Amino acid sequence: MPSGSKRRKSDRQIDFQTVLDGIAKAVKGDLKKGRVATYIPALARVPKSKFAMAVLCNDGRQAACGDADEAFSIQSVSKVFTLTMALRAEGTSLWRRVGREPSGNRFNSLIQLEYELGIPRNPLINAGAHVVTDSVVNRDPNGKQAILDHVRRLAGNKKIKFDEEVARSERAAGHWNAAIANFLKAHGNLKSDVDRVLDAYFHQCSIAMSCRDLVRAGSFLANRGVDQRTGERITTVRESKRINAVMMTCGLYDAVGSFAYRVGIPAKSGVGGGILGIIPGFLAVAVWSPGLDATGNSLAGVKALELFTTRIHKSVF
Amino acid sequence: MPSGSKRRKSDRQIDFQTVLDGIAKAVKGDLKKGRVATYIPALARVPKSKFAMAVLCNDGRQAACGDADEAFSIQSVSKVFTLTMALRAEGTSLWRRVGREPSGNRFNSLIQLEYELGIPRNPLINAGAHVVTDSVVNRDPNGKQAILDHVRRLAGNKKIKFDEEVARSERAAGHWNAAIANFLKAHGNLKSDVDRVLDAYFHQCSIAMSCRDLVRAGSFLANRGVDQRTGERITTVRESKRINAVMMTCGLYDAVGSFAYRVGIPAKSGVGGGILGIIPGFLAVAVWSPGLDATGNSLAGVKALELFTTRIHKSVF
Amino acid sequence: MPSGSKRRKSDRQIDFQTVLDGIAKAVKGDLKKGRVATYIPALARVPKSKFAMAVLCNDGRQAACGDADEAFSIQSVSKVFTLTMALRAEGTSLWRRVGREPSGNRFNSLIQLEYELGIPRNPLINAGAHVVTDSVVNRDPNGKQAILDHVRRLAGNKKIKFDEEVARSERAAGHWNAAIANFLKAHGNLKSDVDRVLDAYFHQCSIAMSCRDLVRAGSFLANRGVDQRTGERITTVRESKRINAVMMTCGLYDAVGSFAYRVGIPAKSGVGGGILGIIPGFLAVAVWSPGLDATGNSLAGVKALELFTTRIHKSVF
Amino acid sequence: MPSGSKRRKSDRQIDFQTVLDGIAKAVKGDLKKGRVATYIPALARVPKSKFAMAVLCNDGRQAACGDADEAFSIQSVSKVFTLTMALRAEGTSLWRRVGREPSGNRFNSLIQLEYELGIPRNPLINAGAHVVTDSVVNRDPNGKQAILDHVRRLAGNKKIKFDEEVARSERAAGHWNAAIANFLKAHGNLKSDVDRVLDAYFHQCSIAMSCRDLVRAGSFLANRGVDQRTGERITTVRESKRINAVMMTCGLYDAVGSFAYRVGIPAKSGVGGGILGIIPGFLAVAVWSPGLDATGNSLAGVKALELFTTRIHKSVF
Repeated sequence: MPSGSKRRKSDRQIDFQTVLDGIAKAVKGDLKKGRVATYIPALARVPKSKFAMAVLCNDGRQAACGDADEAFSIQSVSKVFTLTMALRAEGTSLWRRVGREPSGNRFNSLIQLEYELGIPRNPLINAGAHVVTDSVVNRDPNGKQAILDHVRRLAGNKKIKFDEEVARSERAAGHWNAAIANFLKAHGNLKSDVDRVLDAYFHQCSIAMSCRDLVRAGSFLANRGVDQRTGERITTVRESKRINAVMMTCGLYDAVGSFAYRVGIPAKSGVGGGILGIIPGFLAVAVWSPGLDATGNSLAGVKALELFTTRIHKSVF
Repeated sequence: MPSGSKRRKSDRQIDFQTVLDGIAKAVKGDLKKGRVATYIPALARVPKSKFAMAVLCNDGRQAACGDADEAFSIQSVSKVFTLTMALRAEGTSLWRRVGREPSGNRFNSLIQLEYELGIPRNPLINAGAHVVTDSVVNRDPNGKQAILDHVRRLAGNKKIKFDEEVARSERAAGHWNAAIANFLKAHGNLKSDVDRVLDAYFHQCSIAMSCRDLVRAGSFLANRGVDQRTGERITTVRESKRINAVMMTCGLYDAVGSFAYRVGIPAKSGVGGGILGIIPGFLAVAVWSPGLDATGNSLAGVKALELFTTRIHKSVF
Repeated sequence: MPSGSKRRKSDRQIDFQTVLDGIAKAVKGDLKKGRVATYIPALARVPKSKFAMAVLCNDGRQAACGDADEAFSIQSVSKVFTLTMALRAEGTSLWRRVGREPSGNRFNSLIQLEYELGIPRNPLINAGAHVVTDSVVNRDPNGKQAILDHVRRLAGNKKIKFDEEVARSERAAGHWNAAIANFLKAHGNLKSDVDRVLDAYFHQCSIAMSCRDLVRAGSFLANRGVDQRTGERITTVRESKRINAVMMTCGLYDAVGSFAYRVGIPAKSGVGGGILGIIPGFLAVAVWSPGLDATGNSLAGVKALELFTTRIHKSVF
Repeated sequence: MPSGSKRRKSDRQIDFQTVLDGIAKAVKGDLKKGRVATYIPALARVPKSKFAMAVLCNDGRQAACGDADEAFSIQSVSKVFTLTMALRAEGTSLWRRVGREPSGNRFNSLIQLEYELGIPRNPLINAGAHVVTDSVVNRDPNGKQAILDHVRRLAGNKKIKFDEEVARSERAAGHWNAAIANFLKAHGNLKSDVDRVLDAYFHQCSIAMSCRDLVRAGSFLANRGVDQRTGERITTVRESKRINAVMMTCGLYDAVGSFAYRVGIPAKSGVGGGILGIIPGFLAVAVWSPGLDATGNSLAGVKALELFTTRIHKSVF
């Protein structure tokens, strides 16, 4: 077992601050290459030069670099948190309303949804996220606030809030999502009113938090369901593994396979340029860089995570 | 770090033989539930009562149960071995001809192939496997034999052979695969003759080997590219991780997400009822049960692997 | 030229009343076979026993049978009338926003719309009709009323009106159409607000008129663009031919080819069970029978039209 | 009835030679605009400057212009003649194996075929034509020759023959068609061997005949099933109407609607640049110009037919 011992020892010896600082330097030239999301003004005006990264280990070590305390729009990363809520409340019966297979399509495609009669392929594409949000708001008259409270608690930061300008803009520009939600309703797969689901959905997407907030909020997924800071159990061991599995196969839109190949860890990205990654049993890592690649994922963010798993010699593979 | 130590210690204490024997008992009632592949006689007449499982750890421990020494038709599991050959010979330029994203479709769908202009989604669906096989036979006039030799060497068993009856039957019934290969050729994505690729493809699928052979042949993927028995390096560390990543996101046809959720390890299944699974850094595991579920994967085989990762408390998540 | 003369002479000798009465008797047993549309109560409660047919020749002869003076919900038949309005106002530039090819899909499919980037295949499927309605309401602040006025004038009947109960129910149940309209808006192919287009669309579908009204309203299409009763020119000769062509290739949802094969004339059907057919240069014919077949067309209505063109020995082929 | 008389009188007064000569002049500038099919050398080397047109009226009048006696590769126009054979031999049971709905897709798409489980949408797309050819060759051990004999008899020209160079080249380049035929076989919708069907199919496509031959061969469709020259009945009245209906809704690949809109008559095009058109009850017209538009139809040919129906004031609408 020498190799195992060596690796484990080296896990403890990794100097994360040095690693992150090195990555920040290495991706500097890539920040300009991506394209910032422009469908709403509040996202369009975020400078491409922004970059942040944060790490939180199960053993309490942490590190951060760049704009790691600056809040950004987490967008689809929020889907992991609402999925956690819905799974806890509804259990596995949630899977009758939404699948857990990769879509092989863009995040917002309606094609598959039609062929599969209104059952979205997985909870991390837009259609599936509408179903998950519906599951939350249908149980809780105050569902929108409950989502925010859940994220605040996970991150241990009561100041996290909706960016109302973003939520409003998303709503105004959100015809594609309105099409999806109406389509789900037409197939009987939304219980609440379309407008109520859309309002909660656009708000959860508008949640603004920093990379440092994000690794805290996601660390239970690295730590077998237990909040690393408080010791509180957020999900069962099994649930946390399952959420990681869903992220692994469905978390990066149509670049799931490429991300697994290059980076090799469960992760969820958002169109605001953020990505939350998990090395199960070891750490949570978050990165933020607003420039996106052709698949809608942060271009420099993916590269930073690739460098991260390469340099610390850790991935799930 | 108590939890880490505890888990690691327990890795060494796992009594694999007891685990496998328990699983064999637990899935007994499931053997009848699946449906044996019937498109060729040689597969159709395999008794559903067959069951085998084998494990080979990086530290040399092994265990097996059931018909673990009986050879069966590995079918699509062979795609992992030809992919290994093609990647070694062609390097990453292979990815210009084939993607590495999950398909979100059945293993043999032509729909996606048409929309994506003859570039198969990944090397583990049939269309992608034709491209990989073409890459091998196009470099080697004796490509078919080279594939067999490669598998023999990996498994350390020179007696492994093609089942010529199976290969012949596959060819006779292989109109769907002939459609796929002709379609690839029409798009300029096969270099060799259609018939030559099909002949090699049907032969690789006909390779007959046992679960015990299979864990040996696949163990380099658990052991960072090094053959556990001989110490020979088969692939680089990076390549072995990447093949695991491709298996994780593409290895179980249209049940990739569900398998990740239930079992949580990289794996590749075949229509003969075999599945090869990898716990990176720890072990290779193989299972064989001919009855298939609706997605074309071994029904009892998937359940056996689910029990396996649950009972040994190990998965990549 | 004897055969031509003979046929022409026989055109004048056809006793339409006898033909219609014979058809009414012949299809009696078919009225029960179809299934009345049930997605809104107002349609669901229409008795399947209803049947009506009316004919209006270019030479002024007319005939009718059954419930030919009873108003029914014309639904998609209205698309022909709004198309006429839009073509007159916008001319051929309309074809930049909507194609004129048969869809090869169900009337309300979103799949093709996504692949073709928000340009509906033709103006007679739902997505295309939304674009046409948008063209009308975008030019006219009072567009909804203008549509009704247009139909009233064509039919020469000021009592024709919207069925507000139907319009309201369509709106309440109209999530699929709301999905389509939002999807078009997301692609920039609706100029007006989604809600305004939907309101006008659901109202035009709710127009209630009789078979006798319908043949009058459609007779300009049989008469090279000229209203047979008033002599008023509604469209150019070319436009009336083109509208007939669009009906021929796109007027019966996914049964266009089968209808051409069996009946052989341009026609437009509606989910209320009505069908308007045109024999160019000769006559307009309308039929109403609420029971629908699997393709959403009036089951007995299609059969009645098949008997009609067979018995009068006239079709476009 | 004045307008009818006037039109009918003018039918007899049309000077077809003048009309054709005028069209030949009018489309001269368009001959260069199209792109000659290049997938086989024998088609690629046909000069774009070629142009021919021929007319044959039911009353015996005929006219021709340009290269009307020069044989060209009729390609898919042949599908009309094999369809006639199959319908006569098999009757309406043919429609259990092939639909008659427009495809809404390219002529050679496999997508729809997969969704519809191996039942091609109609007999005039490639997949449907394979089924039709299979129906012919499965009944007749000498099916290939029977197809040629049938065309010779219809055209009254025993010198019409297969262009063996074309047939050979089609076969060598025919991977897409081989994919389609294998796919049909995989779905159980080919009775004969794949190779036999392909051989007959590529030969029927290679038939070389002139525009003058073509109007003769097709004139029974204008003349209610009766050969205009010999008086022989080729099909029943009903069958000839039905074949016209299938051409109307399926005869121009993915430009069916646009052709109906612009030209307004049943027609079938081929990739060799030929088009056969029918004005039922009046005449057959053929045109040849090798340059194709983006939909695979003769660019100048479609324009010539548009001018033809416009100038003689005749279409089915």
